[in-house]
Amino acid sequence: MNITLEHAEKAIVAAKQKATEIDTKMNIAVVDAGANLVAFGRMDGAWLGSLDISIKKAKTARYFDMNTGSIGELSQPGGSLYNIEHSNNGLITFPGGVPIKNANGEIIGAIGVSGSVVENDHTVAEAGASAI
Amino acid sequence: MNITLEHAEKAIVAAKQKATEIDTKMNIAVVDAGANLVAFGRMDGAWLGSLDISIKKAKTARYFDMNTGSIGELSQPGGSLYNIEHSNNGLITFPGGVPIKNANGEIIGAIGVSGSVVENDHTVAEAGASAI
Amino acid sequence: MNITLEHAEKAIVAAKQKATEIDTKMNIAVVDAGANLVAFGRMDGAWLGSLDISIKKAKTARYFDMNTGSIGELSQPGGSLYNIEHSNNGLITFPGGVPIKNANGEIIGAIGVSGSVVENDHTVAEAGASAI
Amino acid sequence: MNITLEHAEKAIVAAKQKATEIDTKMNIAVVDAGANLVAFGRMDGAWLGSLDISIKKAKTARYFDMNTGSIGELSQPGGSLYNIEHSNNGLITFPGGVPIKNANGEIIGAIGVSGSVVENDHTVAEAGASAI
Repeated sequence: MNITLEHAEKAIVAAKQKATEIDTKMNIAVVDAGANLVAFGRMDGAWLGSLDISIKKAKTARYFDMNTGSIGELSQPGGSLYNIEHSNNGLITFPGGVPIKNANGEIIGAIGVSGSVVENDHTVAEAGASAI
Repeated sequence: MNITLEHAEKAIVAAKQKATEIDTKMNIAVVDAGANLVAFGRMDGAWLGSLDISIKKAKTARYFDMNTGSIGELSQPGGSLYNIEHSNNGLITFPGGVPIKNANGEIIGAIGVSGSVVENDHTVAEAGASAI
Repeated sequence: MNITLEHAEKAIVAAKQKATEIDTKMNIAVVDAGANLVAFGRMDGAWLGSLDISIKKAKTARYFDMNTGSIGELSQPGGSLYNIEHSNNGLITFPGGVPIKNANGEIIGAIGVSGSVVENDHTVAEAGASAI
Repeated sequence: MNITLEHAEKAIVAAKQKATEIDTKMNIAVVDAGANLVAFGRMDGAWLGSLDISIKKAKTARYFDMNTGSIGELSQPGGSLYNIEHSNNGLITFPGGVPIKNANGEIIGAIGVSGSVVENDHTVAEAGASAI
């Protein structure tokens, strides 16, 4: 029930394709069911600071089995999960992290994308996750 | 004046029972009066990211001898403890951490619970704390 | 292919029993196949500093699917893995960490024990691992 | 003068091929001239603990523009770089990290490989580096 390297690389290929389509340069990370990195690719010219963010987005999506943006809605000032970002050596809770499921709907990993506005990051992450 | 392992395990058993009752899957941590981990259990299928959060909630509750949610009310923007979460290698200040007292009302440790909405986390932590 | 909480707790019970038998006080940690903590217990009076060591031993045993002492033989000055301990936020490479296998011989987690001389730590870890 | 993602992925493909040839399962990391991760792949079943080690080997090789094993010879007790591993959030100084050069002999990045004995790690890293 763990994503394979072959599938992780397939997700990265699909994500890169979508990133190019929408004219962006992305960092793309895929983690397994244990939230450990399986594959990573940084497109030429992509923001350096997005390297760590893409990995943290992938981990965050697997840590809580949901899109990172959903956590961010609850972690705002006054929200029920305010400042949850201080846990797990730093979460990233804005959009761009998406769980990856197998054909049976079981979560087998997650993908994290960073390098543009968060709407684009999410679009590219979705493209990667749905390639599997 | 320190919680024993026997009592910490009793708290975890009670917390697991309550978690099952309300149909949740929790990470449950118990720390002693020195804020050091005594016992821990992660229920099958509970969120991975809640592992660290449950431990941080238990520590936070003992660091300040109050429910974690009470600190969170003061750490909001404009509040007197704004961003206190940056201390102690990361606090968690939303509900789910509760001090544990002995029969004389002295604090001997704390319990932290994470894995559901914060109201459920708090309910399960209370069930664990009051088992002692 | 992941250890359950029930099995992890069974390993801790067996480890505590062996620790008592040989008159020691131990910190006992069990991680799953992803090297994430599943269960933990610190016996009353056990060394505080062994808390972190027991968790790092369990992680180290799973990180490399072997007893921690085997890594320590290779990480000595002049050895092929000299100073490998600087990786993974700190490894512990002396005895006391042992992989846990299921009935088919597949590794499903690991146990780490710390609180006495390393021979005792290893004995207690073995008792825990073989209870499953 | 920086490795491209295309070249980094080519290095990983070559490294994976060599790893399969010699019947090993490797973690393979490629960093750029700035010592930042460009691409990464963890072969199915490769040691989890080698994830961090492969990245640290790649960084170490670029930090000092030499094979990691060369640094390890100087970092032994009594050596001129004794315990240099404490710098840079942890170096790995045994074999498996190799600089990557362009056609003009300029260093444009580095590759780090971990997952077997260090001789194999180095062989696979060399295969990756020389594919460019």
